Amino acid sequence: MEVNVLVTLNSNYIKPLRVMLTSLFFNNPNTKFTIYVMHTTLTAEEIEDIGKLIASMDGLCREIKVGDDLFQNAPVLFHYTKEMYFRLLAQEVLPDNIDEILYLDPDILVINSVEELYARDLGENLYGAASHNVISVTEINKLRLFPHEISSYYNSGVLLMNLKLLRTQVDPISVFTFVEENKSKLIMPDQDVLNILYANNILDLDEVLYNYDVRYYGHYKLMSKDLVDMDYIVRNTVFLHFCGKKKPWKKGYSGRFYALYKHYEKLAEDRVKAL
Amino acid sequence: MEVNVLVTLNSNYIKPLRVMLTSLFFNNPNTKFTIYVMHTTLTAEEIEDIGKLIASMDGLCREIKVGDDLFQNAPVLFHYTKEMYFRLLAQEVLPDNIDEILYLDPDILVINSVEELYARDLGENLYGAASHNVISVTEINKLRLFPHEISSYYNSGVLLMNLKLLRTQVDPISVFTFVEENKSKLIMPDQDVLNILYANNILDLDEVLYNYDVRYYGHYKLMSKDLVDMDYIVRNTVFLHFCGKKKPWKKGYSGRFYALYKHYEKLAEDRVKAL
Repeated sequence: MEVNVLVTLNSNYIKPLRVMLTSLFFNNPNTKFTIYVMHTTLTAEEIEDIGKLIASMDGLCREIKVGDDLFQNAPVLFHYTKEMYFRLLAQEVLPDNIDEILYLDPDILVINSVEELYARDLGENLYGAASHNVISVTEINKLRLFPHEISSYYNSGVLLMNLKLLRTQVDPISVFTFVEENKSKLIMPDQDVLNILYANNILDLDEVLYNYDVRYYGHYKLMSKDLVDMDYIVRNTVFLHFCGKKKPWKKGYSGRFYALYKHYEKLAEDRVKAL
Repeated sequence: MEVNVLVTLNSNYIKPLRVMLTSLFFNNPNTKFTIYVMHTTLTAEEIEDIGKLIASMDGLCREIKVGDDLFQNAPVLFHYTKEMYFRLLAQEVLPDNIDEILYLDPDILVINSVEELYARDLGENLYGAASHNVISVTEINKLRLFPHEISSYYNSGVLLMNLKLLRTQVDPISVFTFVEENKSKLIMPDQDVLNILYANNILDLDEVLYNYDVRYYGHYKLMSKDLVDMDYIVRNTVFLHFCGKKKPWKKGYSGRFYALYKHYEKLAEDRVKAL
C-alpha cells in the first residue's frame, strides 16, 4: 500500500523525528511511504539529511517549504510561532493530487502497521483522530472555557486528513478569524482550533490503537479490565504517543516505554551514522 | 567473528529461548553463530523448530542430546532434575574441537554485540562470569552457609567457558561428590557449585555490561552516580537478565524493560509464524 505521511518541524525536533520515522519504517516493511516534510526554518543541509535517512529505508521524501505568504493574515499568539497553523492548513500547500495524508507528531513511536488505519474511509469527515479520555487538569480547566461546544477533546498528534474535503470546506481566513477572536482562551492553539471548529467532522479513532498516551498505562489497563496489557499494546497499538512535558529523548525521563524508545533511538542514530 | 553459544533447556523454556536468540541475532548481524542446544527431553519436532528459527537468522544449530550415561553417578536433589548439571559438565559432551563457548540462560535479552566479550582472554580461568552486587535476602542467607569460602557470588546465567581448560581440570566425579556432601545446603545447585568449587578460577566480568539484573535499575543508576541510565544501558549493556521469579513472558509482569522484552517477543513470534 502507498501511504502519505505529513510531518512538520523545526530544528529542535529533528532527533525525535528520526526515531519516529525509524519506528514507522521498521514496523511497516512492505508499505511504500512518501513523507512530506513541512517546515519554514530547516536548513538545506537538515532537509538533505532527513531525505537521506528516508531514502535509506526505501521511502520518498518531499519537502514542503512554507513561505510567509500563507500566513500573511494570521494572528500570532504569545509563545507560538506561525508553525502552529501547519497542520490546520496543510491542505493549502500539499500537492493537489493527494487526497489523503496521515499527520504524525514527532514524539510518537509507530509500533505496528498503519495500513488498516490508512484504509479507513473518512466519508464526510475532515479528519480521523482519537480523543484522550484521561486528560490533565490543565486540559480540564481549558474545557471549561468551551463547555457547550465540546463533546470530546481530540488529540491532534495523529490526524488522518481528508485533504480533498479540507480543500473545499476549510478557508484559512476562517481559521485566522477564529484564532483572533479567541486569542485569550487558546492554550494549545492548533489542537484547540481543531476541537472547536471541526469537532463534528472528526471520525473518532480508538485511542488505545491510534494515540496511546504512554503516561496512562495503568488507566488503560484498568478501564479495559486488563485486556490492554503490555502484550496487547505491543501486538496491537499502532501509535505510542509520548505526550506531556517529559520527553524520552531528554535526561531524567522515566516510564514504562523508555527502554523501547531508547531502542528505536539507537536504531535511528546508528542508521544516521552509517549514511 | 565466529561465536559458539550454549543453551540448555526443556520444553518449558522454548518460548523465552526464541526471544533470547532473536535478540542475539538482531543485535549481532555480522557475527557467525553456532548455537549448541543441550537437552535430554526435547522432542525431535521441537529441536527441528529451534533449528529452523536459527537457520532463518543465518546461524548454525547443533543438537547435543544428553543421555543418562553422563549422570549415572549423579546425586539428584529435591526439586531438581539432572539438567542442573548441564552447564557444569558441558565440556564433557561438547565437541572436542571447540575451545570456547558462551553459555546463556533463556531469560536474557541480548541488546548489543557479544564480540568484545567473546574475544576476552580467559587466561588460566575456567569461566568468565559477573557477580551480582545487589543480592536478595534468600541469597544472603545462603551465603552464611559458606562464609569462609566465598568472596563474591557469581551469577551463572552468563558464562564464558574455557572448554579446553575445563576438560583437563574438572572431573564430573568431583562435582557429584561435592553435591552429595553438600546436598542440604544447596539452594540454586549449579550456581552454588560454580561459586564454591571454582570461585577462584572465574574471570570477573562487569555485571552492568554482561549480566544486568533488570530488577535493580535504580540501584545501578545510583551506584554509578547516574552514569548507568537508560541511555547507557541501551547503548552498552550486552545482556539484560530477567532474574527472579517474575518473568516477562508470564502474565502480571511489570518492570522497566517489559515493553522492550515484548518487542523482541513479537519479533520472535512473527519470525516463527513465517517459517
